[in-house]
Amino acid sequence: RRGEMAKSAQLIDNEVFRAYATYAAIVLLKMMLMSLITAYFRMTRKAFVNPEDTAAFGKGESAKKFLRTDPDVERVRRGHLNDLENIVPFVGIGLLYALSGPELSTALLHFRIFTGARIFHTFAYLLPLPQPGRGLSWAVGYSVTFSMAYKVLKSAWLL
Amino acid sequence: RRGEMAKSAQLIDNEVFRAYATYAAIVLLKMMLMSLITAYFRMTRKAFVNPEDTAAFGKGESAKKFLRTDPDVERVRRGHLNDLENIVPFVGIGLLYALSGPELSTALLHFRIFTGARIFHTFAYLLPLPQPGRGLSWAVGYSVTFSMAYKVLKSAWLL
Amino acid sequence: RRGEMAKSAQLIDNEVFRAYATYAAIVLLKMMLMSLITAYFRMTRKAFVNPEDTAAFGKGESAKKFLRTDPDVERVRRGHLNDLENIVPFVGIGLLYALSGPELSTALLHFRIFTGARIFHTFAYLLPLPQPGRGLSWAVGYSVTFSMAYKVLKSAWLL
Repeated sequence: RRGEMAKSAQLIDNEVFRAYATYAAIVLLKMMLMSLITAYFRMTRKAFVNPEDTAAFGKGESAKKFLRTDPDVERVRRGHLNDLENIVPFVGIGLLYALSGPELSTALLHFRIFTGARIFHTFAYLLPLPQPGRGLSWAVGYSVTFSMAYKVLKSAWLL
Repeated sequence: RRGEMAKSAQLIDNEVFRAYATYAAIVLLKMMLMSLITAYFRMTRKAFVNPEDTAAFGKGESAKKFLRTDPDVERVRRGHLNDLENIVPFVGIGLLYALSGPELSTALLHFRIFTGARIFHTFAYLLPLPQPGRGLSWAVGYSVTFSMAYKVLKSAWLL
Repeated sequence: RRGEMAKSAQLIDNEVFRAYATYAAIVLLKMMLMSLITAYFRMTRKAFVNPEDTAAFGKGESAKKFLRTDPDVERVRRGHLNDLENIVPFVGIGLLYALSGPELSTALLHFRIFTGARIFHTFAYLLPLPQPGRGLSWAVGYSVTFSMAYKVLKSAWLL
């Protein structure tokens, strides 16, 4: 069985790829967590957007008052969208980067800084922390992805 | 030619990877379908957001009345965003999962349940069905992705 | 070192995969550019959404007037969301397509048309150009991704 697995999925035996898989899974789980936080704030703030979601809180006019926007819900949703805009490029470019043959130590540096920056970004958005905390953590993550893209284009370039 | 293809892309000869490719393509196509449904509702409800999109319906003030939001359009857009938030992590984590050497039967179980749950979720959102139909289908898809992420982290863990 | 890199990441030695990596990195960087354009318009139009982002422009009531939506900012944000809805499926399906053993010339045709269409789409959205320029460029990119998905499903089909 071990031989079969190694044959069918050698990538997972490569250390850089294992590091990529670990950090990609962590940041994607972090992004998915935003859905739960949104649901939590929608429930506790009683702020929904679909009429069918308020049926449990009463019928007719009494339920309609829960169809409203709430600042806390909107804040989490903006954080979630920002994750989509930044974590998705990291996952895509990071995969190509992991396959472009970087040093393990260099790859780990990229993955760790990005992951740390995005976790900080989420706290900075949700607490919120005063600027430029959120802005800087966004810029750090952005720069890491940009640095990996540069390596990918240098290694793979075939236009 | 066959030898060359096998050499350059052995992954596609692996059954788990073929199953992943099939289901990933299906759910991504399903997500893309939301763009067409949005366009359909924008046309039939005459509800647009960009001034240049209403030019075909008249000039000046007569076109401005089509710059408005419509509940059906907004509902499809929320379904589309929910797909981005859930299908994108499935595609990313699913790829790593497929490369982590799972049993074919276990992998198929994950991919089939996720795909079924997301197709149900779309119907539940668009018809709409009463809750907790949509909520449960969302939770099922979420749990499948979480289960795959657990396997990925257990197999690949290199922090 | 070269031997080690080749062993650990043979994919990058495959010409179709190199072409995929090049174009995927380009369109993901193009998508990331939308964040910078949004930030540019938020700064120059002084239109923010988070109270903590306006602190640099004054305290209390004087800062509140910068918490507003601006048509130019919203336009860039719509372009960014459209990129997420279209570039993300291209990157996911394109990876599977690159691993399904297409001819290099056919693959390059797909990648080049998609990339050209999405760059045109961004200009059409931001200038803006009159319709149907933006609509057609959207449809071209959409069709390319659909064509790649067809090839993936034909090659990999395992339900």
